[in-house]
Amino acid sequence: MNRRMIFFTVAKVLKLETVLLLLPLIVAALYQEWNGVIAFAITCGASILSAFLLTVSAKPRTKVIYAKEGFAIATLCWIAVSVIGCLPFIISREIPNVFNAFFETVSGFTTTGATILTDVEKMSRGMLFWRSFTHWIGGMGVLVLLMAIVPSDSGRMIHIMRAEMAGPVVDKLVPRVKETARILYVLYFALTACEFVLLLIGGMPVYDSAVHALGTAGTGGFGIRGDSLGSYSPYLQWVISVFMILFGINFNLFYFVVIGKISSAIKNTELWIFFSMIAVSSIVIAVNILPLYGNDFGESIRHSVFQVSSLMSTTGYSTADFNLWPPLAKGILFILLFVGGCAGSTAGGLKISRVLILVKMILRDIRTMFHPHSVNTVMIDNKAVDNGTLHRVSTYFAIYILLIGGTFLLISFEPFGFETNLTAAITCVNNVGPGFGAVGPMGGYNDYSDFSTLILTIAMLFGRLEIYPILLTLDIKSWTKPLSTAKA
Amino acid sequence: MNRRMIFFTVAKVLKLETVLLLLPLIVAALYQEWNGVIAFAITCGASILSAFLLTVSAKPRTKVIYAKEGFAIATLCWIAVSVIGCLPFIISREIPNVFNAFFETVSGFTTTGATILTDVEKMSRGMLFWRSFTHWIGGMGVLVLLMAIVPSDSGRMIHIMRAEMAGPVVDKLVPRVKETARILYVLYFALTACEFVLLLIGGMPVYDSAVHALGTAGTGGFGIRGDSLGSYSPYLQWVISVFMILFGINFNLFYFVVIGKISSAIKNTELWIFFSMIAVSSIVIAVNILPLYGNDFGESIRHSVFQVSSLMSTTGYSTADFNLWPPLAKGILFILLFVGGCAGSTAGGLKISRVLILVKMILRDIRTMFHPHSVNTVMIDNKAVDNGTLHRVSTYFAIYILLIGGTFLLISFEPFGFETNLTAAITCVNNVGPGFGAVGPMGGYNDYSDFSTLILTIAMLFGRLEIYPILLTLDIKSWTKPLSTAKA
Repeated sequence: MNRRMIFFTVAKVLKLETVLLLLPLIVAALYQEWNGVIAFAITCGASILSAFLLTVSAKPRTKVIYAKEGFAIATLCWIAVSVIGCLPFIISREIPNVFNAFFETVSGFTTTGATILTDVEKMSRGMLFWRSFTHWIGGMGVLVLLMAIVPSDSGRMIHIMRAEMAGPVVDKLVPRVKETARILYVLYFALTACEFVLLLIGGMPVYDSAVHALGTAGTGGFGIRGDSLGSYSPYLQWVISVFMILFGINFNLFYFVVIGKISSAIKNTELWIFFSMIAVSSIVIAVNILPLYGNDFGESIRHSVFQVSSLMSTTGYSTADFNLWPPLAKGILFILLFVGGCAGSTAGGLKISRVLILVKMILRDIRTMFHPHSVNTVMIDNKAVDNGTLHRVSTYFAIYILLIGGTFLLISFEPFGFETNLTAAITCVNNVGPGFGAVGPMGGYNDYSDFSTLILTIAMLFGRLEIYPILLTLDIKSWTKPLSTAKA
Repeated sequence: MNRRMIFFTVAKVLKLETVLLLLPLIVAALYQEWNGVIAFAITCGASILSAFLLTVSAKPRTKVIYAKEGFAIATLCWIAVSVIGCLPFIISREIPNVFNAFFETVSGFTTTGATILTDVEKMSRGMLFWRSFTHWIGGMGVLVLLMAIVPSDSGRMIHIMRAEMAGPVVDKLVPRVKETARILYVLYFALTACEFVLLLIGGMPVYDSAVHALGTAGTGGFGIRGDSLGSYSPYLQWVISVFMILFGINFNLFYFVVIGKISSAIKNTELWIFFSMIAVSSIVIAVNILPLYGNDFGESIRHSVFQVSSLMSTTGYSTADFNLWPPLAKGILFILLFVGGCAGSTAGGLKISRVLILVKMILRDIRTMFHPHSVNTVMIDNKAVDNGTLHRVSTYFAIYILLIGGTFLLISFEPFGFETNLTAAITCVNNVGPGFGAVGPMGGYNDYSDFSTLILTIAMLFGRLEIYPILLTLDIKSWTKPLSTAKA
């Protein structure tokens, strides 16, 4: 294991975070929240100091990294940015409990959007901005951002990118990883800016527009009002619905559109399944909840599209308390919690491409049983999916279900109902945010014990990094091995 | 597809069912329940007539069958025995609703034990006996019984056995399938008889002992009192606990014990995992529920062992309303609902061996990531598990989770809570019986609509036959193909 290179990269990420922390510091200063300004300033100092301490020993002898280093870098960077990222909440005493502050920060970076705040409107503007900004940073990935903007001469950054980006297959858009990272962030920034402008046009205040654009882009879901998006105008709710859907789409497709390969984008199977699932679920739910909204279809379809887009893109904003919706609507939303958005988007969950591969693999196996002598290949977008990927996807599914089961079991001593604990585990692993019961859209995680808060925090990290990087980082033995034998 | 041979076998099974129906007829006669006697007699007539009609066209030209025929035979026989088996309930008007009667019968044969009865104590003795007897027939399998007792000259009965018996790998104990079936039934009968005698010794009335021995043996769970086993003595509850555990064990192990290969039986990994899971879960739950039972550890351990054994073996008897237990106890029981007993037992669920293979496969994959150049094989009981089995198990797991999700979605329009609908789907697919909420051990399925009752009935059949046989039978195309091209 190239330990020095790992620490060197963690230090780089912390330096980047220091710069990023200046933005909420400026916001706090603009609103004259001096308590916040001090908290952000101290955090910047702590961040720079940590970065310095990590590299004080020695520079890496070689910059070569392999898959294993990529996993370790992703895991440790995510832990480091979260530890530093929670300091402003603790220092400002706005979230005095350490476990809660860490939960809130990880929930931000992992774009979960689950909150321990009981009264979000009491928080300072600077802190709420930082909270939503973590969504934006975590959505596309802090390491991808690092690659995009910081010059580097390591030739194997694809390993880091693969470890941080979600989905069954991560590949470069263009031959150079650095260029790919830059394209992704340009698209990401442009889409966020579009949403910001459209929200402004709809009359949303500048601050609110910025916060919600950041939260939507990362498919995070931290709101700044007690009722999430419930009190904003229908136009604003529709804009956010549309952008939640857009940010649930594979960014490669936007790139194809930009470079004129529109047909490649339109022929994408995952995209159409995503759209179809949103359409069908929204219509069924709209009909199901019609009586709740005085038989006004316009209103019921707005709420249903919003909630469906929010949960499928794993954002977690809400315009209505879907916890009070009838069982069929809740049943559909429950299933959507697992599915998530498209691979290569900022959304969490299993990802549609994984579900698609699983379903196609099952169908292939059944076909093979019907016709044992026929050759059956799993095809997606007219390309054969190799057996290695099929195997990885089915193993991932199994470990993912075990992760949900384990998380549920570990928090099940809490005095909440079955529905609350189960959906809390599911929604944290899938980085959605709200569940049913006490953790519903109008509830929160503040009543969980410190132990359960920590468990759910770990579950969110496992979900965001898609399990394996963290497991591999936990392999103590490989840390003591010299680089030469750890080649992969 | 050798259609004639399929119908010929279904007819044989119906003839066997006619004979089996004579037993509840005699019970009804002993208790002078003439209404019941008439119902059973008419059913016997209908059964024989159906068998006759199925074979009236022509005898099969060839008795050769392949895997596909095996699957079709299992599926159609199970549907046929259930359709005939529900007639007594309908004819006697004890369960007048056709959907309910079919649900109850399938619940019996699949050894689920979920009931639509609101007052079981009002039922006649003959009907209750038949209800529990279906558990016994379905537990080891009606086709295995047919093989054991009826002479046959088809050389490929292993295909039928594989289709009907549960678990990832089904193999013969002895070279001949017929002999294997006979050994299994002798062991099954002997163990049932042992339990019957031990219950009698504990002072349980003859009728009650018979009914509960049959229900335990099949890991079914239909009780004859409103509180299931709650009002019987602690001794009787312990006896049933022990036998629920025994019937959750792979029958091959009992055979090894009988022929003196005790060490082979004791070295079985699945067995020890089964025991360990029961022990650990029981102790944790016993401590968790201690305050509910006046801090009497004897009582709390009795209830916890009973419920853990009942849900892990997928029997479904209860001595306490675990629906009212604290969240931790319910959380553990919820996880156990999925696991089930050992492969080759009469228990349902995923089966421990599948869970074990999944976990070992995940660990192997992680090890391979750690050390890419090492060769890692999944070993169980010192034998390598081949890649085909690994693939089948992980695909099965995925389709099993989808089946639960689909069942939940289809019944989710029902006006019950999330907890009720979700656990109803899980408990029916896993052939357990009771869930949480309205379908808890003291509740039932009577409030579900006819549509949902049918969905849950189908889910039970899918669960018992482990999904694939039914899917393959639904392949209409293969039915029209001549035998020669359908070879497998």
